Amino acid sequence: MIQVAEALSIIAENSCKMPIRKIKVAKSLGYILAEAIYSPIDMPPFRQSAMDGYAFSFSELKQFNVISISQAGDFSNIELTKNEAIRIFTGAYVPDNLDTVVMQEHTSRKDNSFEITKMPTRFANVRNKGEQIKENELVLEKNTLITPAAVGFLTCLGITEILVYTKPKVAIVVTGNELAKAGKKLRLGKIYESNSIMLKVALQQIGIKKTTVFQVKDTLKATKKVLKKCLSDFDVVLVSGGISVGDYDFVKEALLSNGVEELFYKINQKPGKPLFFGKKENTIVFALPGNPASTLTSFYVYAFPALKKMMGFEAIHLPKIKRKINTDFTNTSGKSLFLKALYDDEKVAVLDSQSSAMLNTFAVANGIIYLPHDVVNIEKDQEVIVLPFN
Amino acid sequence: MIQVAEALSIIAENSCKMPIRKIKVAKSLGYILAEAIYSPIDMPPFRQSAMDGYAFSFSELKQFNVISISQAGDFSNIELTKNEAIRIFTGAYVPDNLDTVVMQEHTSRKDNSFEITKMPTRFANVRNKGEQIKENELVLEKNTLITPAAVGFLTCLGITEILVYTKPKVAIVVTGNELAKAGKKLRLGKIYESNSIMLKVALQQIGIKKTTVFQVKDTLKATKKVLKKCLSDFDVVLVSGGISVGDYDFVKEALLSNGVEELFYKINQKPGKPLFFGKKENTIVFALPGNPASTLTSFYVYAFPALKKMMGFEAIHLPKIKRKINTDFTNTSGKSLFLKALYDDEKVAVLDSQSSAMLNTFAVANGIIYLPHDVVNIEKDQEVIVLPFN
Repeated sequence: MIQVAEALSIIAENSCKMPIRKIKVAKSLGYILAEAIYSPIDMPPFRQSAMDGYAFSFSELKQFNVISISQAGDFSNIELTKNEAIRIFTGAYVPDNLDTVVMQEHTSRKDNSFEITKMPTRFANVRNKGEQIKENELVLEKNTLITPAAVGFLTCLGITEILVYTKPKVAIVVTGNELAKAGKKLRLGKIYESNSIMLKVALQQIGIKKTTVFQVKDTLKATKKVLKKCLSDFDVVLVSGGISVGDYDFVKEALLSNGVEELFYKINQKPGKPLFFGKKENTIVFALPGNPASTLTSFYVYAFPALKKMMGFEAIHLPKIKRKINTDFTNTSGKSLFLKALYDDEKVAVLDSQSSAMLNTFAVANGIIYLPHDVVNIEKDQEVIVLPFN
Repeated sequence: MIQVAEALSIIAENSCKMPIRKIKVAKSLGYILAEAIYSPIDMPPFRQSAMDGYAFSFSELKQFNVISISQAGDFSNIELTKNEAIRIFTGAYVPDNLDTVVMQEHTSRKDNSFEITKMPTRFANVRNKGEQIKENELVLEKNTLITPAAVGFLTCLGITEILVYTKPKVAIVVTGNELAKAGKKLRLGKIYESNSIMLKVALQQIGIKKTTVFQVKDTLKATKKVLKKCLSDFDVVLVSGGISVGDYDFVKEALLSNGVEELFYKINQKPGKPLFFGKKENTIVFALPGNPASTLTSFYVYAFPALKKMMGFEAIHLPKIKRKINTDFTNTSGKSLFLKALYDDEKVAVLDSQSSAMLNTFAVANGIIYLPHDVVNIEKDQEVIVLPFN
């Protein structure tokens, strides 16, 4: 049995970045960039007016004739004399021989001429070619998270495809003869199976949409067969249940007989002690305890960082924040505790029911308090570590 | 021209919750529940063992014969004598006439009998029927956000469909003759259009996938026609560009002539002054300034809360946090400022380029600093308001 920190470091060591592939920028939100991107163009690609007004050649003159118009999208390098100007709009091309734009609010117009009422400085209101970024200049560093702004930035430079780290394909394997399908009538002794859909949406939440659910009966043969398929076809296998020491818990045996290397089994924690982590070639396996609240806690604390690392993230764990706890708390179990909690800007409240079988508190929680195994007494208002989720 | 706070309150007043519809729990992540949910069953639905071990009838006896097995999923109300017990596993049915489970680690087994080596208290390790939740008890309150835990909780009670607030259908309208499609060669005077895809992924990020993009030429006729269609077919219309005072800015005129009520036009802020907000029947319209960084700032500060309100959220704005600013800052413009920024646990740094045309700083920012119009001097290490995004 190992401690939480050791488990986390074994997971981080054994989760590797996924292969790289090219995808459309339009579909790249939430991916991590697997290459440095350099600009294919100057941006702006030409000298651009930053205002609606008039473009002219700066001198002591204040009176101009308007001899042409440059609307955004137009291009013309018209020749002008010193007292000629053009009407120009935001984003429009500034002809090569003009250097300054006066905003229309600082002019008085009469027919085809205008007078400048407030003289701008020379070069005012003209955005230079390459002012935002120059051709071949760095756009985004490798390992940048693709956000809406990054998508906009890449697209405005004309970039339509980028290399990113692929997202892992995840298999969810649910074990247990007691499990019935929600929507059907429940026979005595059975409960509704909810872990598969809960894990599926938890994966959705971190941007992983490709998941396949397998349900197996509690026999060694069935468990071995399904796991064999999962180990060959998926990058990550999340097994729910069947990992305790009961006579019908076949998951560990089935994994080992399929060639999975055990990296750890059991963590000194509550909930979620019987957690198995292993690896076969590039596929990693988490066998999570089957009680729903244990499953979800284990997912957030252990599977989440592995998945993040595979997707190319550098900050792979749930964020850690500190909050003042709302109650005295004693932990004589010698185990690390993960408590469902509700935090605000200052405090964190331990929620009522902490049973590992119960999801009701989890459904109203917004974080998990982490209490290390070697801290026995916590006093009210002492700062504790909270892992926010959602 | 109005101030930021007034604009935000007009938006909140005029954005209404969307109609309600029934959806599958499996597809409900990120929706807001539009009904209170009560449990259709007791959970657990029967008395359940919390351990792998032996179920027996508590007395002074320590020696038992094992006469049957209850595996998870089984159901049998076998009759036992006082010195008989059954082998039982976690989650399995506890027969009516038995009251206690001893974990297997606290027994010593020999053939078909065992001795208890550490006596549990009476009723130990038995989860009572309805211990998690009773039939007809409240499961989730109306207006709860559906998280992975909520999906799990609903499903484990057998609930497969719920009423939620629909997500709005959003039209994105992009104006500007200067706009070219990324991937094509850029002619002089043109720039690549990026706002539509940037807004599309920003909407994706908050869970809105149904968006349609329209691109229109800078003519009044074309703008009117497209906006007419958008106003009748969509819940929200986001227009990018064409809202300044230039001769080719037809958006406001086209909106008003299509029967849109102007709720405000222009906010005393930088960037994004020429922001228009209006309404026609149940459709709301934001005409956002076309410079990419202004578009995205306006989206996060103004469109985001409107969309959140429509989706049923109670906390509709970007969260507000306080951080120590990394520099002295003077704002003599009399305008509220929104500055692209990078914050950590303690501090916030104002990023270099704040031009409204430039997305490069936005692409590396993780928040926006909000400086109210009436604050002139900010000193280094003074706390300022940061709006985190991403």
